[in-house]
This record gives sequence, C-alpha cells and structure tokens, in this order.
Amino acid sequence: MTETHADIARRSFSRRLLAGSAAAAIGPAVLSTATAATAAPATAAAPTAAAVRRAGPGGEVRHMKLYAEKLADGQMGYGLQKGKATVPGPLIELIEGDTLHIEFENTMDVAVSLHPHGVDYDRANDGTKMNDSVVEPGGTRTYTWRTHAPGKRKDGTYRPGSAGYWHYHDHVVGTEHGTGGIRAGLCGPLVVRREGDILPDEQITIVFNDMMINNLPKGPDFKVTVDDRVEIVMITHGEYYHTFHVHGHRWADNRTGLLAGPDDPSQVIDNKITGPADSFGFQIIAGEGVGAGAWMYHCHVQSHSDMGMAGLLLVAKPDGTVPGHDPHH
Amino acid sequence: MTETHADIARRSFSRRLLAGSAAAAIGPAVLSTATAATAAPATAAAPTAAAVRRAGPGGEVRHMKLYAEKLADGQMGYGLQKGKATVPGPLIELIEGDTLHIEFENTMDVAVSLHPHGVDYDRANDGTKMNDSVVEPGGTRTYTWRTHAPGKRKDGTYRPGSAGYWHYHDHVVGTEHGTGGIRAGLCGPLVVRREGDILPDEQITIVFNDMMINNLPKGPDFKVTVDDRVEIVMITHGEYYHTFHVHGHRWADNRTGLLAGPDDPSQVIDNKITGPADSFGFQIIAGEGVGAGAWMYHCHVQSHSDMGMAGLLLVAKPDGTVPGHDPHH
Amino acid sequence: MTETHADIARRSFSRRLLAGSAAAAIGPAVLSTATAATAAPATAAAPTAAAVRRAGPGGEVRHMKLYAEKLADGQMGYGLQKGKATVPGPLIELIEGDTLHIEFENTMDVAVSLHPHGVDYDRANDGTKMNDSVVEPGGTRTYTWRTHAPGKRKDGTYRPGSAGYWHYHDHVVGTEHGTGGIRAGLCGPLVVRREGDILPDEQITIVFNDMMINNLPKGPDFKVTVDDRVEIVMITHGEYYHTFHVHGHRWADNRTGLLAGPDDPSQVIDNKITGPADSFGFQIIAGEGVGAGAWMYHCHVQSHSDMGMAGLLLVAKPDGTVPGHDPHH
Repeated sequence: MTETHADIARRSFSRRLLAGSAAAAIGPAVLSTATAATAAPATAAAPTAAAVRRAGPGGEVRHMKLYAEKLADGQMGYGLQKGKATVPGPLIELIEGDTLHIEFENTMDVAVSLHPHGVDYDRANDGTKMNDSVVEPGGTRTYTWRTHAPGKRKDGTYRPGSAGYWHYHDHVVGTEHGTGGIRAGLCGPLVVRREGDILPDEQITIVFNDMMINNLPKGPDFKVTVDDRVEIVMITHGEYYHTFHVHGHRWADNRTGLLAGPDDPSQVIDNKITGPADSFGFQIIAGEGVGAGAWMYHCHVQSHSDMGMAGLLLVAKPDGTVPGHDPHH
Repeated sequence: MTETHADIARRSFSRRLLAGSAAAAIGPAVLSTATAATAAPATAAAPTAAAVRRAGPGGEVRHMKLYAEKLADGQMGYGLQKGKATVPGPLIELIEGDTLHIEFENTMDVAVSLHPHGVDYDRANDGTKMNDSVVEPGGTRTYTWRTHAPGKRKDGTYRPGSAGYWHYHDHVVGTEHGTGGIRAGLCGPLVVRREGDILPDEQITIVFNDMMINNLPKGPDFKVTVDDRVEIVMITHGEYYHTFHVHGHRWADNRTGLLAGPDDPSQVIDNKITGPADSFGFQIIAGEGVGAGAWMYHCHVQSHSDMGMAGLLLVAKPDGTVPGHDPHH
Repeated sequence: MTETHADIARRSFSRRLLAGSAAAAIGPAVLSTATAATAAPATAAAPTAAAVRRAGPGGEVRHMKLYAEKLADGQMGYGLQKGKATVPGPLIELIEGDTLHIEFENTMDVAVSLHPHGVDYDRANDGTKMNDSVVEPGGTRTYTWRTHAPGKRKDGTYRPGSAGYWHYHDHVVGTEHGTGGIRAGLCGPLVVRREGDILPDEQITIVFNDMMINNLPKGPDFKVTVDDRVEIVMITHGEYYHTFHVHGHRWADNRTGLLAGPDDPSQVIDNKITGPADSFGFQIIAGEGVGAGAWMYHCHVQSHSDMGMAGLLLVAKPDGTVPGHDPHH
C-alpha cells in the first residue's frame, strides 16, 4: 500500500473485504482503521453507541502510484504495486476538495492511459490520444485529478460538488476509445465522498464488462457479515446494456443510494438498467429485514444471467456461517 | 376474490377497470369500494368536495391464495382462483407494514416459484432453487412477504420504506433464473403503498415481455374515463430493452410518478428506457389538458412499435364514447 | 426568422451558436438579445455584476411557420424557412403558459406530421394517422401546442408543469410510427422553460439517431467559449440504446440538469443510458475547473464510438483559439 492510501485511511474507512472465491477479482485497498474514529466523527445528533462513521473534511494533496500490467491470462489490469494488478483495478477514494497525483507506469508493450469520470482534469490529464495524454510502453506519467465541494458561483448559481460513484478506465488500447483495454480489464472504481457522507464497513465493486462480471466466466461471490454496512459500486462497460439486480436488498436511485429523509422523492429500486460507462453506488445493511443467507445478484437480462452473469452476496452470521449455503455447491 | 383482497379493499381502492378488447390480459382484482372512503380519508388540508383518496395505515397480516397454471395456448399464468390465471398475474397491493402470506399452489407439471421484488423475504421465501424455495408439480407452499414503513435505524440513519411499484415472477421454469416461466407469462404487478399515498380510480398493468405487451401479439387497448385518476404500472421482462411512451400524458421519474411539490427536482417525462425486471408506476388524470380521445402508448424503439408493441389508452367521455375512435378500427 | 421567434427572444435569450464544421447540422434560432435583460431580470439575491439571466413569465400566444422538406442527400428535415430545413430541426423554445400555433407546410411528396413530446395537445394535434392529424403532400395544417405552469388541482394534488427538455418528430413517414421520417432526420428539440429558469448563453442539440449523431457520418464538433453557460439538449431516436458521455463536464440527472441546492438528492453524472425518444438537457459552464481545450463527447457503447459516434466540444479561449487543437486534425 502506498503512503497515499494510508493517508486516505486516516479520514475514510473500510474494513477488510471478506471475499469468497473471487478474492483475486476484487481490488479495493485494505485500509487501516486505526484513526478512523478520530478523523471521521459521527454527528452529534446520532446515538453515541452505534453511530455511523462519516467522511471527514477533504482538501488534501495526495500521491499514489499506479501500474498498468498484462496479466497471465491475456487480460490487463491496473495495480497499486508491480505484479499485483487486478481486474477491476484498485478502489480509489477521495473526499471533495482533495487533489490526487497518480504516478502512472506502463509496464506493457502497448500504449495505455488513465481516463477518469467525474473528477476535474485538464486536457493534459484527459487520458486520450487526441489530447496527447497517453503513456507509451515503459513510460511514466503523472496524472492529476482534482475535486471540489459544492458551492456558489459568482453568478449566484449552485455548483455541484465532485461526489459520486465514478470510475476510471483506459482510453487508448485497441481503439482511440480504449475498447481493447477496457475489454481486457483496464477499469476500476473511483469514489468521491462529500464531507459527512456515511462510510461503509465493507466495499464491493461489480463490473458488468461485456458478458462477464469482473472479467470472470462466472460472477464472483462476495462474503460479508450480517448487519454490516456494505457499499456496492456498480460499473458497466463494453458493448451491451444490462440490468443489475440483487436479491433481498434495495437502494435509492440517487447520488448516495441512500434516502436523505422522508422528503427525498427518489425511487427505491432493486433493479436498474445500465449501459457502458454508467456507474452508481449504494450502501445496504447486509441481511436487513431478511437475515443471513446466500443472496443472488445478477444481470436480469435473462440470457445474460443464464450465461453466467450471476453471483452470490453471501451474508454470513457473526460466526462466519452462511445459512443454507454449501460452500461446495 | 379471496378474503385477503376484500380486506385490502377496505383500505385501498380501485374502481372497476373498464378494459377494451384485451380484458383477458388484465389481471388486477376488482375491489369493493364500499368502505374505501371511511378507511382512507383525505387529508384535512384538501378541499372536501373533490379530495383524493389516500392509503390508510398498514400493519395488517393478510392471507391470499395464488395458483400457477398452464393456459390453453401454452402460456403460463398466476391466478387468484383455479382456472382463472391471467397474464400478467393479479395485482397485489399492500401498505407499508403489512405482512402477506400467500398459499401458493402449483397446478402445472413443472416446478415453479414466486420471487418478489421490493418486499422483505427471508431465504426460505426467495423463490429460487438455490434457496430451496420452489414448488414441485402439484405442490403447495406458503410464501411470506413482509413490508416496512420508513424509519430511523439505531445508528441514526434513515431506513427507506418498502413502498414502490414492484413485481413478482417465477425464478425456476426453464432455467434457474426462470427465463422460460417469465417468457410464458409468470409475472405480475406488486404495489406497496405508503400511508397517505394517493389512491387511483383505475389501474392498468403493462408488461413489455420480450417483443410482446402482456404476452399478446398486439398491444391491448385500455379504456378509462376522462378525469379519472389512472394508475399505470409498467414492468419489463425478458431479453430486450424498450422505451415506454404514452401520448398526451406525462409523469415524474420518481417513486410515485407524482411531484411532491415545487421543490421536487424529479424530471417529468413521457418516455423512459427500461430493461428486464425494471418497474415503475405513476398516476395520470386521464385526458388532463388534452381531452378525451384515443391515445397511443407504445415502445418507442421504432422496430418494436412497428412490429406490434403499441396499444391504445382510450379516454372516454362520461357517456362512454371515445371521440374519433372507431371501435372496429 | 419569424415574428414568433422575435417575440420569444424578448423573453428568452440565446447567444449566437459558434459552431465548427457542423454548422449546417445545428438548427437553433439565433435570437436577438436586445431586450433580454429587461424581460428576464436576475433575481435580487444574485450578485448584480455577473447575475444569470432567467426566463420571464409565460402566457403568450405565439405563431410560427414550419416546413417539412426533402434535403439534397435524401434526408428530410424541418425548417423555419423554405429551402432551409436542417437535421435536427430548429430549436423551439416556450415558457410555461405559452400557446404555440405552428403553421406547418408539407413540401414533400409523402404525408408527414409533427408529433411533440411533453406539451399539451388534443387529438387533432397528435400528429398521428390514427388521429387524422397528418399532412398530405403539398398540404398545410396548423398544429397547436399548449403548455402550463405547475399548480394545484381541485382535488388538492400538485399538477406538474410542462417544463422540460422535450422534442418533436414525424409520426407517419415509412410506418405509422414515423420510423422512416425519424431516420431521415424529421426531429428537433423543444425546450419548455419555467419562469425563473436559468437561460443559457449558447445552445447545442445532439441527436443520437440510429448509429449517427445529427444524421452525420461522424459526430459534429461544437465550438463554445470558456466560461460560457452552454446548454446541451440530448435526444435519442431510432433503434438502438446509447450512453451519452462528455469529457471534463458533468450534470445533474433531474429536470434542469442543475442542482437546486445542497438538499437536491439528484445524482451528478457524466454518462447516461438513453433509448429512442428519451431526451434530457443540462447546462455546463464551459471548461469550468478544467480549462479550455478539445473535449470529446461520444456514445460510450464501445463499438458505437469506434464507428464514429463521437465529436468534440471545442472550448475556446476568449481569443478564439482552442489549446492543443489543430483545426486540420
């Protein structure tokens, strides 16, 4: 882990992701929780005993290292360390106001790039060939992403902040739109939080990439513990439209996936149509109102789920067992 | 009608659905209105004379019977009574806080199940083969669905309620995702209301299922009366994406399809992209601002409408005639 | 320009659209700004120096002329003057409460029509063959569109207003759903503003029509100036789903594309799935936080962008130059 991520961990928080059979496909950084309580205090109004953790203030300048690598099976991935690239790439978390400098190294034999969604980047950081911001084989380039909190413009209008469940991807391998790079796995989650946003206990990234989930022939299983606050970042890439569905759990179709309160008109859903480069995220309380168990998540386009676009959200009891689930099933 | 539905009718309300040529394809229960005014009083603030009816409080335990049946034409349907299955299946209405026990009987020669969206169900009520909750030929099983009102969690966060325009469907016929069952017609609308939600005068369910509407070769016509509050529940299933469009009427793209007031930022639309297992609902005042007449509703994917995914919303004058519409057209 | 449009210009406002190579494909009327400041005063609360312009009150009865024409290349278009049809058709702007009478002339050798989304039209103005509201070759017909502000109904419920980023299109050429007409180019943007809505400095219409943008083999480039408030109206038509993405800029997924303030829960996005007849709009401050430059906009379905569904948003410096962009590129 880079120094940068340790820095981020002082403000944000993520417990160890307890992944099942698909651990290799999950890329989020495992962040230290040591100082989380101090840096991200709950609001005074929340009950002391069980208060949620919230994102602290942003505004820091961070540095991280990222590698683009070819994987043994012909896929390509982004990784925080050499030889440790994953598909999807590592979770990058920022808080509005943060600036992130990414020292990006291309260890492959083709030009590659890094194009983010959602954050502020000038044309030198666009990650496109057109804007001369790709990295040749063996090369290194520092990409800078900036973020901002919401605020008032000089003209009196409201400027939205950068917060969102975003993603990053290659924009040059194969075609000038990165079609080959994305297909091979060069994409990952990017979460920008607002000060005060609720932080999850566990984090899962699910990428519908063409007809695969996280570039695996069958959707991976993710193991979490009942009552944990689990954040799911859902990204779509490639050629097809999909519908993302999870059994037994729902979310709000808005910025956070959470309802702000009784006046929030957002639709609560458990199924959502998505197309390439769409992304959204939400937090669920694992097993809330339904209990521990093996809950399917899948693309609800029937032929897609039948062909393997389905996996399990394994909600374990505190003792680690998943009722009704045979691990050798 | 089961006792359950009579119970529900005491709180919610639905006038007789005046369907045209496609009556057989419409499944909502025809509910008694006798006690609706008493059980679902309008808010004090609304004008007395023309006040809308609103959902009363939830929290009741209900029981209903549901059958899965093969239909004469090779299709399959859910029905409230033996030999009376329809495609789509019957409208099931709940109010947040209600619990529904469904005594489900499989009269077919293949295993079938009932998987709901939106409501709370434990793994024994998931309706999947994986969770051992399907029903063998000739078998009976009681499925239990629970719902809850919004509220505060112990950690101080806001928990969304179950209210929504949801649906239920088979999850085992043909494949472990119910691809064959859904295609054959095993799906239906499920509406969970919040106490205080506005109740409609008439209710229409439209299912885009592969390239058909309500499994008919041509989209059915629905006849309503001008100025009636008509609720449309729109569900998509199968393999394709669609766009749902209705002429002369619009709705808000949020939980209720209605704007809460001037501060509700939801987009008002008359066309919406949907994919398999997406669902939404809304209420229109039939002919509001446009008058009685024959109004097309259709999938706006051009080849889909050209191939028959189009029908009519017949908005009749109080005398029952539809201006400009030849019933033999 | 018709008298009608001059009238509209007294209340709304649009600076000259500085289009690049694709000027012919852009149809918005170039409106006089002479009286805009008077007719659409900024709110008192906004800073005087840089206050945004806002839409004035609606309620006027307007008249305009519109022609349907065959273009030299076999396409078809709508135009404000004979021989000047464009694809997409001209921008039609209204303010809630306005009524618009369109004297529509069919100069082609096939029947054609005008069907709007979003506004109020009775069945004689539906633009469908079924409602006898198409125009035979050489014929003329006056279509009337009405709009309304939000308000309370007699029953106490809130009625949404007509405001929205809508569109209009043919509904009869080729098939009874206008499949041939739409494909050939018979569609255009229709913006209905609410009194007080922020007015843009420049306006761009982007139509994803089958596999083309504005019916061009390659997506057109649009040139704007840094810091200008640019409005993009995005319409989809035809057969395919798409995802609309623009580099370096974002918008809110709601009615205006703008956040109303800190309590607006809408998701801020830079990528959105759309299907035929979907439409949405938003305003960006060109280059805000990212600077001048050439910013791609494209369909993010990988094969679609690779096949040409991509163009440039050229954000020029005040001197007219676009950093890093070779106009002969």
